[in-house]
Formats: sequence, structure tokens, C-alpha cells
Amino acid sequence: MDNRPIGVFDSGLGGLTAVRELCRLLPEEDIVYFGDTGRVPYGSRSRETIVKYARQDVAFLRTFDLKAIVIACGTVSTTALDTLAAENPIPVLGVVVPAAKAAAEATHNGTIGLIGTQASIRSGAYERCIQTQRPGTVVLAQPCPLFVPLVENGRFHRGDVVIETVAAEYLQPLKQAGVDTLVLGCTHYPLLEEVISDYMGPEVTLINAGAAGARAVADRLRETDALASRKEGGSCRCFVSDRQEDFARIASTFLGWDVSGAVGQIDISRY
Amino acid sequence: MDNRPIGVFDSGLGGLTAVRELCRLLPEEDIVYFGDTGRVPYGSRSRETIVKYARQDVAFLRTFDLKAIVIACGTVSTTALDTLAAENPIPVLGVVVPAAKAAAEATHNGTIGLIGTQASIRSGAYERCIQTQRPGTVVLAQPCPLFVPLVENGRFHRGDVVIETVAAEYLQPLKQAGVDTLVLGCTHYPLLEEVISDYMGPEVTLINAGAAGARAVADRLRETDALASRKEGGSCRCFVSDRQEDFARIASTFLGWDVSGAVGQIDISRY
Repeated sequence: MDNRPIGVFDSGLGGLTAVRELCRLLPEEDIVYFGDTGRVPYGSRSRETIVKYARQDVAFLRTFDLKAIVIACGTVSTTALDTLAAENPIPVLGVVVPAAKAAAEATHNGTIGLIGTQASIRSGAYERCIQTQRPGTVVLAQPCPLFVPLVENGRFHRGDVVIETVAAEYLQPLKQAGVDTLVLGCTHYPLLEEVISDYMGPEVTLINAGAAGARAVADRLRETDALASRKEGGSCRCFVSDRQEDFARIASTFLGWDVSGAVGQIDISRY
Repeated sequence: MDNRPIGVFDSGLGGLTAVRELCRLLPEEDIVYFGDTGRVPYGSRSRETIVKYARQDVAFLRTFDLKAIVIACGTVSTTALDTLAAENPIPVLGVVVPAAKAAAEATHNGTIGLIGTQASIRSGAYERCIQTQRPGTVVLAQPCPLFVPLVENGRFHRGDVVIETVAAEYLQPLKQAGVDTLVLGCTHYPLLEEVISDYMGPEVTLINAGAAGARAVADRLRETDALASRKEGGSCRCFVSDRQEDFARIASTFLGWDVSGAVGQIDISRY
């Protein structure tokens, strides 16, 4: 048993898709979440800048006595996981391997679509991992640079003509190629699940990287006897790097409970 | 005569619309440009964060011996001009007053549209300035939060269905209200001039805030006898806070000359 909290971070709102699944699977865990809303988005930036920002995010989270850190961000998971894991004495877990495993298990026709930020697609990390899991798989990768800005602006609802136009543009080549499985390789994308599913059709299995990552964390804690035990249930504290008015509102809607009293602001450039 | 360079900054690419006009009007001036590509966009962030970032931008530029600083950014001009002007001993010039004057002069029917970032519209700065210039003017303000992410992603060309869809959504109420003048209150927006003009129609006068700001700078330097004199012509050095591959390419296209050899990268968080 280990009652220390789990640290979770993302460039903004997206990591909440992992938090939601973590809370569902492990309701007794305490979670400390950091969303870097003062510097979102990450996925259009260089590797060098992403690594620098991610190091600061981890340094802030480690001001808490954590048992593990979850990189609930596709961009950081693809671009900086090895660096962060080597630099920290507690487990640092990303979303790439769990999502790649889930996709390799889900596909029937061996043709998998992958969507992510520019940095994630550029890294090739998901493709390498899928090939390791299921050699010979055809992976069609499509960067979707506008999805994170759209989600962060609250433009993720079914019926929004802008998000539907952008989604159709990005997804058209994947649909045409006949993928039967689509990896949502960025933790923001599950907020677009309805829009993406409407376009791709019900026969395409969507793999939620944040949720897959959360399940892998639960497995890891269980295997290492590091689960929390708390009859009253765990807590979730959120920190952001800007006073972005929308964070608490969108986070509350998305998580299904009111987080507005549990959001603090920090100066991430000091870490 | 004053041969010291002019410092110009913006959150990203947008300020180049002012640089282009400055170079056209004052070809003998040296310009030092900073684009904060590691933290773009600014317009969706809080006032507090915008002021903090702008102070760092100015601190970096002032490592050069400058004669003036041009805030080639609508968000910073509306939100932090007074603070920056009070803190610095050289002239700090923004785009709001010049754009408001140009709009007040251009309108015939007294109904002016204003588009800008969320922070710019929230500040009310353009409206106050237009009312000072031309009391009784009707100003219809519309925030356009997706325009900067779209421009920074290179999505500003006529015929691009995404930008045309977004533009129609934002501009529809202004067109319907019969504005005869439209202030492009963010220096990124002139890259959308064709798209915006196609939608609004040729009878609506577009006011380019960056260009208006550049003309005001030229007037100010002329009035204070601070123009440069350089027979060989001035230079333009650019600095960015990320290694964003696209900056040199888009900047070169936009300015009409190759800047790729004149772009440096700095760590803005150190300033």
C-alpha cells in the first residue's frame, strides 16, 4: 500500500482524459494534476522546447511527495519520456506503449490510423511501438495541428461546423485507406470522440491514449503493491500556469464534478 | 538623425505585418524583431500572463541599444502598453491609437467593426480610443480566438476551407450589422486580408493595425528628428524563442526577402 499521490501533467486540458479514467479505476487515489495553460500548445513546438517545458512540469509536480508521475500528454510521451524517466527516481509513465498495445490488439485488418500533434507524429514513437507489438502492421500517421487549439477553445462539440470541417480534412485519408482502428495519440483528442466517431463510422475502433495510459498505471500500481487505501475516497487537486478562466469550467464539465475550488495557479518558469 | 535600431515584438509571426510596412516607409532603418514563438498565442491568456511575457520581450530587446520599441501585437498593445511605457525610458509605441484614428477617419456611416483576440476585446481599449476619436461611433467588437492559431499554422490562404469557415462564423454578425470599416485589431490578421475581404466585400474598408502602427512610428521619428540615415539601406534581424521550423519560411514569404540567415533563437524565460 502506498498512499502518496500520483502526479499527472499535460500541456493543458487534455490530460484530464487520463485523470477521468484513473479516478474511475482507482477511486481511492489522490491525484495532483498540472496543466501548463500558460504555454499550451506543446505539439507545434520543437523537441528542445518540449523537453525543457516537460522538465519544469515534472520539477513542479515533484514538490509533492509522489509515488509515480503520469505523462498524460501524447507530445511529451513521444518526445521526452526517456529523458524524464532517466532523470527521476520514481516511475514516469507515458501513454505511447499502452495505446500501441491496445491498437495492436484491436485491429483485425492490420491497418491502423494514428492521429497526433506535429511533434508526436514527427517522433515516430507510436509507429515503432505498434511495429514492435504487431510486426507488419500498416500504420497511417496524420498530424492534426489544429485539434489542440480547437479543444482548448472549447470547440469540440458535435455539430460545431469548424471542428467538423477540420476533422473531415484530417481524417479523410485515413478513412479512405480503410483503417479499422484509430489511435487518438494526443490526450486532448478524446474530447473529440463523438466528432471523430461520427466521421470514421462505428466500425472503426478508437483507442483513447489517455485512458490506455491510466489503465497501465493501475496495472503497474497493483503489480508493485503500491495502490492507495482510503475509505473516504481520493482527492484531485489541479494546478495551472495561467488564470485561464475556462479551465475550471471545462474541467468540471469534463470530469463530471466541480473542480473550481481545487484549482491553483503557479509560476511554472520558476521550476 | 539616430542610427540606433528600432525594436519590434509580437507573440509570433503577426508583427511582421508592421515590419513590412516599416521597411517600406523607412528603408534606411535597422530593425531587431522578436517573435515569442515558444509561447504563442498570447490572446487567450490572462492579463497577468500577457504583462509578464511582454516585460520579458522588452527586456530582451533592450539588450540592444534601441531608439524605440514597437509593440507590433494587438494583444500586448491593448493590455500592457501603459505598463511598458511607464517602465522604459525610450518611446514604447503600440498599434491601438493609430488603428483607431485610421478607422475613425475611414468610416462614413459611423458603424465600425472590430476583430481581435479575446484579451484585446476584453480590454475595451480599441473601443475607448475610437470613441475618443469620433464620439458616437457604433463599434461592434468580435473576438476571433482561432485566427492566431490558424495563421501560425500557415492556414491563411484564400480557398482554405477551414479558415474560410472560421472567418464566416466570426464575421457574419459584423457584415449583417452593416459596418463600413473593419479594424483588424491583431497584427496577425492582415495575413487573412484576402479571406476577410472576400467575405466582407469590397465596400468595407479594412484597417491594418500593424501598418497603421508603423506609419505612426515613422511620423514620430520624423517629428523628433530621429530617423536613420544609411545609404546602404537598413537591416532586419529576427529572434524567436523556439526553433519553429516554419518561422523563417513563412517570414520570408511574407516579407518578400529571405530572412533565413538572419533568425536567431533565444531563451526568453531568462529575461
